[in-house]
Amino acid sequence: MPAHKLTDAEIKDSLTALAGWTVKDGKLYREYQFPDFPLAIGFITTAALGIEKMDHHPEWFNVYNKVRVYLTTHDSGGITQKDVDLAHLLEKIALKLT
Amino acid sequence: MPAHKLTDAEIKDSLTALAGWTVKDGKLYREYQFPDFPLAIGFITTAALGIEKMDHHPEWFNVYNKVRVYLTTHDSGGITQKDVDLAHLLEKIALKLT
Repeated sequence: MPAHKLTDAEIKDSLTALAGWTVKDGKLYREYQFPDFPLAIGFITTAALGIEKMDHHPEWFNVYNKVRVYLTTHDSGGITQKDVDLAHLLEKIALKLT
Repeated sequence: MPAHKLTDAEIKDSLTALAGWTVKDGKLYREYQFPDFPLAIGFITTAALGIEKMDHHPEWFNVYNKVRVYLTTHDSGGITQKDVDLAHLLEKIALKLT
């Protein structure tokens, strides 16, 4: 059974604990800026371990020191708690690298 | 001095040795598909070491087992030999991981 698609009110509520995150094209979105390219890649690599464990994958884009992340749950047709949980995981890692 | 921006003929010539690569939005473009997410991240991580050494960075996007790569040289306003060289580096690594 697909995860529950969050309502707009539930998304808004989740975003209060996720500074820097917004909704873009129906997905949770944040752009991270790291000191340099190796730290941006370090973020991706470190996060990948937790992502694989969660079995819930981001769409993410890197150029130089920037990483743009888009989170959605395809099976549910929108943003779910899995995306919120993944956003929190990314925040925790990014905090150490920025 | 910025690197020489390749002419259309030079780009066409370079692409003959780069199977799977095309020009998209004025950039060298290829989509790689790996067996799974860890191998896609392995590709990014392994390539990052060579990228940092070249000091020429790709724009790349990952979702699950796919990595889409866009190469251009901003200082030169187009595709240069640096992009061709980076494409060859990526090919060499991807070959081992796919």
